[in-house]
Amino acid sequence: MLEKTTRMNYLYDFYQSLLTPKQRSYMALYYLDDFSLGEIAEEYNVSRQAVYDNIKRTETMLEEYEEKLLLFNKFQERTKLIEEMRNTLKEETLSRDRLSEMVERMAKLD
Amino acid sequence: MLEKTTRMNYLYDFYQSLLTPKQRSYMALYYLDDFSLGEIAEEYNVSRQAVYDNIKRTETMLEEYEEKLLLFNKFQERTKLIEEMRNTLKEETLSRDRLSEMVERMAKLD
Repeated sequence: MLEKTTRMNYLYDFYQSLLTPKQRSYMALYYLDDFSLGEIAEEYNVSRQAVYDNIKRTETMLEEYEEKLLLFNKFQERTKLIEEMRNTLKEETLSRDRLSEMVERMAKLD
Repeated sequence: MLEKTTRMNYLYDFYQSLLTPKQRSYMALYYLDDFSLGEIAEEYNVSRQAVYDNIKRTETMLEEYEEKLLLFNKFQERTKLIEEMRNTLKEETLSRDRLSEMVERMAKLD
């Protein structure tokens, strides 16, 4: 569940601009502020079921956007590569070839 | 006009997965294969006006997606940075500090 929360937080981060204001509000309360479905329902004066349905639909939309655009996936790839570069730049003798190879891998990620 | 074509080609590249199959077909014929509106209309047995309207709407959608997600914009930033890294890696003496600074700028772009 924690893993799902982390993933949803990231997907929300990347794709929130494509959601409606209501979808954004529910998702932010549920995933970022850790409100329960009941608390959100009370806040918006709707049924718990309505909040649940809206959030489920939004989760599906976020996964569909990720399937199409791969923003989170590419972010993870770039993050790994940046970490590799940082480590390589800490080594006593810099390897031009390895650094160049990483830069070319970065260029290919787009 | 050439500049617009280049921009549309890029936006199409980044966001085509969010378009309908028909939007994709028209855009690909018009912008990638350089068909005229009349030729596309003939191909699909619709009016020239219908093709024009569809393409205009799609262009607007692509600009809206770019406004929201900035994929082309970020791609351009990364491309510039990658070019800077390539040039720095060609210098006789490698500068650890400058390379690190570029890696951190890359990390911030996401």
